Amino acid sequence: MTIKSDKQEKGGSAGGGTVMHKLIPYGGYYANRVPDHDAELTETGPGTPLGEYMRRFWHPVCMSMELTDTPRFLKILNEELVAFRDGSGRVGVLHAHCVHRGASLEYGAIQEHGIKCCYHGMIFDVDGACLHVPFPKGEEAEAEKYACSIRQGAYKAVERNGLVFAYMGPPEEEPPFPEWEGNFTVLPGDELVPFSNFQHCNWLQVQDNAADNYHPTALHAGRNVVGGHYQGTTFDEVGAASMEVAPDMQFIPVQQGRSLACAGARRVDKDRLFVRVQHQALPNLSLHAYTSEDGSKKKLFSRFHIIRWTVPVDDENSKMIGWRVMGPGIDTRGVGKKEWVGYETIDFLEGQVAMRRPERFGKYKLEDMPPIPANHRERENYKDAQYAPGDYEAIISQRPIAVHALEHPTRFDAGLYLFRKLLRDAVRGSNPAAGPAQFAEWLRSVGGAPNSYCSGNVFDIPEADTVEEEVARRRRVSKAIVAILTEGEHLKGDERTAFVRDRLEELEQSTRK
Amino acid sequence: MTIKSDKQEKGGSAGGGTVMHKLIPYGGYYANRVPDHDAELTETGPGTPLGEYMRRFWHPVCMSMELTDTPRFLKILNEELVAFRDGSGRVGVLHAHCVHRGASLEYGAIQEHGIKCCYHGMIFDVDGACLHVPFPKGEEAEAEKYACSIRQGAYKAVERNGLVFAYMGPPEEEPPFPEWEGNFTVLPGDELVPFSNFQHCNWLQVQDNAADNYHPTALHAGRNVVGGHYQGTTFDEVGAASMEVAPDMQFIPVQQGRSLACAGARRVDKDRLFVRVQHQALPNLSLHAYTSEDGSKKKLFSRFHIIRWTVPVDDENSKMIGWRVMGPGIDTRGVGKKEWVGYETIDFLEGQVAMRRPERFGKYKLEDMPPIPANHRERENYKDAQYAPGDYEAIISQRPIAVHALEHPTRFDAGLYLFRKLLRDAVRGSNPAAGPAQFAEWLRSVGGAPNSYCSGNVFDIPEADTVEEEVARRRRVSKAIVAILTEGEHLKGDERTAFVRDRLEELEQSTRK
Amino acid sequence: MTIKSDKQEKGGSAGGGTVMHKLIPYGGYYANRVPDHDAELTETGPGTPLGEYMRRFWHPVCMSMELTDTPRFLKILNEELVAFRDGSGRVGVLHAHCVHRGASLEYGAIQEHGIKCCYHGMIFDVDGACLHVPFPKGEEAEAEKYACSIRQGAYKAVERNGLVFAYMGPPEEEPPFPEWEGNFTVLPGDELVPFSNFQHCNWLQVQDNAADNYHPTALHAGRNVVGGHYQGTTFDEVGAASMEVAPDMQFIPVQQGRSLACAGARRVDKDRLFVRVQHQALPNLSLHAYTSEDGSKKKLFSRFHIIRWTVPVDDENSKMIGWRVMGPGIDTRGVGKKEWVGYETIDFLEGQVAMRRPERFGKYKLEDMPPIPANHRERENYKDAQYAPGDYEAIISQRPIAVHALEHPTRFDAGLYLFRKLLRDAVRGSNPAAGPAQFAEWLRSVGGAPNSYCSGNVFDIPEADTVEEEVARRRRVSKAIVAILTEGEHLKGDERTAFVRDRLEELEQSTRK
Repeated sequence: MTIKSDKQEKGGSAGGGTVMHKLIPYGGYYANRVPDHDAELTETGPGTPLGEYMRRFWHPVCMSMELTDTPRFLKILNEELVAFRDGSGRVGVLHAHCVHRGASLEYGAIQEHGIKCCYHGMIFDVDGACLHVPFPKGEEAEAEKYACSIRQGAYKAVERNGLVFAYMGPPEEEPPFPEWEGNFTVLPGDELVPFSNFQHCNWLQVQDNAADNYHPTALHAGRNVVGGHYQGTTFDEVGAASMEVAPDMQFIPVQQGRSLACAGARRVDKDRLFVRVQHQALPNLSLHAYTSEDGSKKKLFSRFHIIRWTVPVDDENSKMIGWRVMGPGIDTRGVGKKEWVGYETIDFLEGQVAMRRPERFGKYKLEDMPPIPANHRERENYKDAQYAPGDYEAIISQRPIAVHALEHPTRFDAGLYLFRKLLRDAVRGSNPAAGPAQFAEWLRSVGGAPNSYCSGNVFDIPEADTVEEEVARRRRVSKAIVAILTEGEHLKGDERTAFVRDRLEELEQSTRK
Repeated sequence: MTIKSDKQEKGGSAGGGTVMHKLIPYGGYYANRVPDHDAELTETGPGTPLGEYMRRFWHPVCMSMELTDTPRFLKILNEELVAFRDGSGRVGVLHAHCVHRGASLEYGAIQEHGIKCCYHGMIFDVDGACLHVPFPKGEEAEAEKYACSIRQGAYKAVERNGLVFAYMGPPEEEPPFPEWEGNFTVLPGDELVPFSNFQHCNWLQVQDNAADNYHPTALHAGRNVVGGHYQGTTFDEVGAASMEVAPDMQFIPVQQGRSLACAGARRVDKDRLFVRVQHQALPNLSLHAYTSEDGSKKKLFSRFHIIRWTVPVDDENSKMIGWRVMGPGIDTRGVGKKEWVGYETIDFLEGQVAMRRPERFGKYKLEDMPPIPANHRERENYKDAQYAPGDYEAIISQRPIAVHALEHPTRFDAGLYLFRKLLRDAVRGSNPAAGPAQFAEWLRSVGGAPNSYCSGNVFDIPEADTVEEEVARRRRVSKAIVAILTEGEHLKGDERTAFVRDRLEELEQSTRK
Repeated sequence: MTIKSDKQEKGGSAGGGTVMHKLIPYGGYYANRVPDHDAELTETGPGTPLGEYMRRFWHPVCMSMELTDTPRFLKILNEELVAFRDGSGRVGVLHAHCVHRGASLEYGAIQEHGIKCCYHGMIFDVDGACLHVPFPKGEEAEAEKYACSIRQGAYKAVERNGLVFAYMGPPEEEPPFPEWEGNFTVLPGDELVPFSNFQHCNWLQVQDNAADNYHPTALHAGRNVVGGHYQGTTFDEVGAASMEVAPDMQFIPVQQGRSLACAGARRVDKDRLFVRVQHQALPNLSLHAYTSEDGSKKKLFSRFHIIRWTVPVDDENSKMIGWRVMGPGIDTRGVGKKEWVGYETIDFLEGQVAMRRPERFGKYKLEDMPPIPANHRERENYKDAQYAPGDYEAIISQRPIAVHALEHPTRFDAGLYLFRKLLRDAVRGSNPAAGPAQFAEWLRSVGGAPNSYCSGNVFDIPEADTVEEEVARRRRVSKAIVAILTEGEHLKGDERTAFVRDRLEELEQSTRK
């Protein structure tokens, strides 16, 4: 595969510059034009190619805690929506503007069944049906006739572990709600803790970051700070220093090009090799293994620690929304902080959202949170963010919509370039297996509970004698893990786990020889 | 008349959806496109069809209290203006940008006669004449010549009862200042109390609301609130519960299609029928009868309680500006609060402006009022507004410019649809009687003091025996009232009042039979 | 020269109006259209004609004090940049977005050499070279190869007296850094005190104001205020009342159309004539003689008091950046206040920046300065600014980009119209001498230290007997001064100063006769 083939053509430079020109010292002039963004992979409004593709999948749209006694205004995929839980406990996700005359239902009153528009009192059910039109006495028949002639735009919603999911595509194409691993692999005693973190930029650069297993080395190291100003938390501080080692990455499309396995091998010490496999599924899901791994002990086939979707709000805003998995089963070192996971906050690392930690804890309730400046430079904590930036700063500062034509990828960016390619192939239909209908068919074929390649693995595999042999060894192990997982794709649950663990043991043994 | 004929063609839906599609449950996908707004009736900048039409009428542009010791910047019909009262007491309304080099006259100094630009000291009179150019000594002749070669853009202004009106059209087409009923029907002891309420949306949806006699039933009822959070004031609270009854509406174009009479019949109780006629005159005036009517006593041909114009600021902002009539003559129940009527406030009901009541009274002076967030969701009182929304929330939340193509009107919206049609006919010239020249000619023919159909009428008319008869009865009475008013159009003042009252008595008698 | 020839064609007016129409009273309607701005002289993005021209000159981009322990984000000529001083003391001006994946280097960490991107840890030198790529162990060769294949956009920077200058054009066309008069004519004991004042409007109206020697009469007089509210400082207050006399201006292109001499003659009293020559050099430099001159004593060929560039930020923002010259040599009356000169402040006069004086001194540090409202009407001090406006208000209120087609210049605006013409000729190539290559060649020919026409001159020349003779006298003297300076152009330094002073003495003697 040619990674560069997914790069768009670059715009001509100002002075008819060539590559030679661009490489001269102080030659900024020859790179001063900003080409257009890659609309095909970044724009998600109704009728756009990606927008149509994305609408064929379930997406989380808000947290359950956002459903209070007043309707919640949302913008998702460039559509204005309201979400609410009615008195009977059902969740509604409706078009924000009343189908009658356009007043926003966010000012409506939640009913025992449905929601009542503030303006003329029409009541709509969660499926969009008009339940009541307050016509004058004697005109009940006319009211009935009118009510039957309209329907508020509505989307089917489901609620899971504190998140509200909606399906915004054509009802007749609705896919199964995907239950990865059946129950998102929660071990007994574990818990899915929901969060929603707003990102002031296009969705794709947030998604890119998930496949970018190369950035933690720099961004999340206590060293990448200014004059003694450290992030509140870095991998170093949480004792997961092994994450700061630049990994040797292998990126392998799996599940017929519907997903990407990203296997990163890092040497913990002379005796142990840590291989972390991240799973990205089209169009916007990523499944992350334990993020606080210290590699101190052998560990095979540990599963999800973060499950997240990157959901477009509009073309220049998005939200990272999903679950942090808590409990001794996955968080073997017990470093997670449940009270730091939620709306506009996460315990993962500092710098994940616009507001920084001292502001985020205890200072605001959902309803009195001040507007977040869309311009990151107008944040009160801008200087603090400069001292110790996090993913938020690295991602949103790529411009409101990152310009792919200006990028110069390394070998380690291959993961995100490959994911973009899988996405483009799916959107264009050049990979039929990833088309919406076939994707849904595949989900049905696995009972709505697909397997994931996500795993954390610490092997007792010693360092090789030479650098060349060591490089070859770590690459061989990474590829072998993905091959084992592929081999076990037809199995499910405990049977699969046993199969994978056995084969990983064999891999360790054979490599130690 | 076919109401739907004034609706614009709908844009195609995403999936080639048909009406069938739109009516399926959870079918929001088939209605996810947002067509363009109706430019012909919403855009008012220089050179637009509606802008040119509107410029042939007098409009209030600000309150007299906004004219202080510094010039007041205004935006009206997409034009940047300054208004001021000079030392000799004359009111000037000038283009904001100095005709010399463009500095804004809002930074100029008000003079005994005219205003002096801060930048080069040129002085302009209220009619735009250049009164002074500070050339150096010895160049007086050159200064005179230059002064005569320029003129600041100016509009003629008149002041009436605390409001400043301007005429922004071609001077040679200036119409009479319309003195409805001669003196806006102030009875002895009554008072016109001015107000100006900013609306963060296109002018037309504010105007639509005036003709929407159907919304109070829902919006202004104490019941349309959440969990015990009530509006500061609702019709119920002010004892005008009869206003909360859904009215049976008749909409009748009058005055050769220059105005619309909106007659709404509500049954107060078994013995009394309340018929309120609202008058809307092209392009943006509405005249409202007593808003706190409780219907407890017979009352025939009561007149204006609110007189208001909806004035476009720009295409996405407007202001509702006019007078609240105070005094025992009109406010028979004495519920008006003069101290609550003014700049960004009105006593009518809660939720008329962006700021809610506790903020509006006593907290700010004109000059220290904080900028009002253009985004209603960034208001500090957003949650309060959700609990108990008012007209402001219902109107501005229809989008910055409401999209008519997405509306699904009921029979009760016929009034605003009809008014839009009258406006479109006037703008297009398809109703010559409503063209600017003919409208002005008509005003001149009635001495600049046209009659109004606005009236409040409580009849001692008992309820009919069957629902069918009752419906027929209320419709017959409503139509008869408008016919009586039309019959009396050639009369004026007391003579007309006597004629109308007599005929209304006859109507009551004949209906009681 | 025909000044009006540089005016653009006016757009048609609304009603097909003619000049006659525009001059009728209350005829604002006939001037209600706002034509486009003059793109050729106002737009400076990459690839625009003026943008390309400007990029061939050195410009100050920020103050040295803005270079702290975190990188400084800048926008200059519509390009997003970061400036920083690395540990070895060198100043870097780089494209803000990392050439790798676009993260902004403003979140990067300043290194001993260069700057490290926060996202993946790449390090770039001040010339854009990639110094380090953190590839994993064993892949050093690949890292080296990648590093050599990229280069961060960089601009050469120099630092002078507290300002950072950058050259943003093609390296091969770099002109000499222009050292006007060799050392910016600092006398022994004098000091160049840097400042940077943000202007919320297009650069050209700020530059226009520099050539506008006519506005101080009105704007900077204690009289141009409202009801006893005076500017914190006016020319009157600083005892330079002679500046408030409307000057008789002569505008003379010099240095082959690369510069403009603006000679303004004012009579101080019956015995003394004050002729101030201001120098404007293409594209955006202006050199101002003593601004606090009281004319009380004879003074010949006094030099720079303000040296400033107007630097475009983007098309609707700019900054006025340069030096205020302090010390007894130039500030003979000792009125300068060094502590009031700096970032977002200057001691010149009140009203030079968005924030007014009480806010500017001592209240904020660079890093906690609140965002300045882009909308001047949302400033907390708006009313104060209305009472006593300064250059800031006069300039920025001309619209975000002033519309030249709406201007009506006087004879006294000839200077800025002529400067616009020089600029247009230079940009179009119709004056080859002002083209970038020839301009640079000329700078090299004068050793990078061109002479300036800037001078303050107080002559013992008595008032003539009649107004006509006095007008002729002051014009003759103004022209003679410029002729003398032109005659001395081939000389430099002390030799030139002696020559000019001798000839000015002769001029005084011959005029006194």
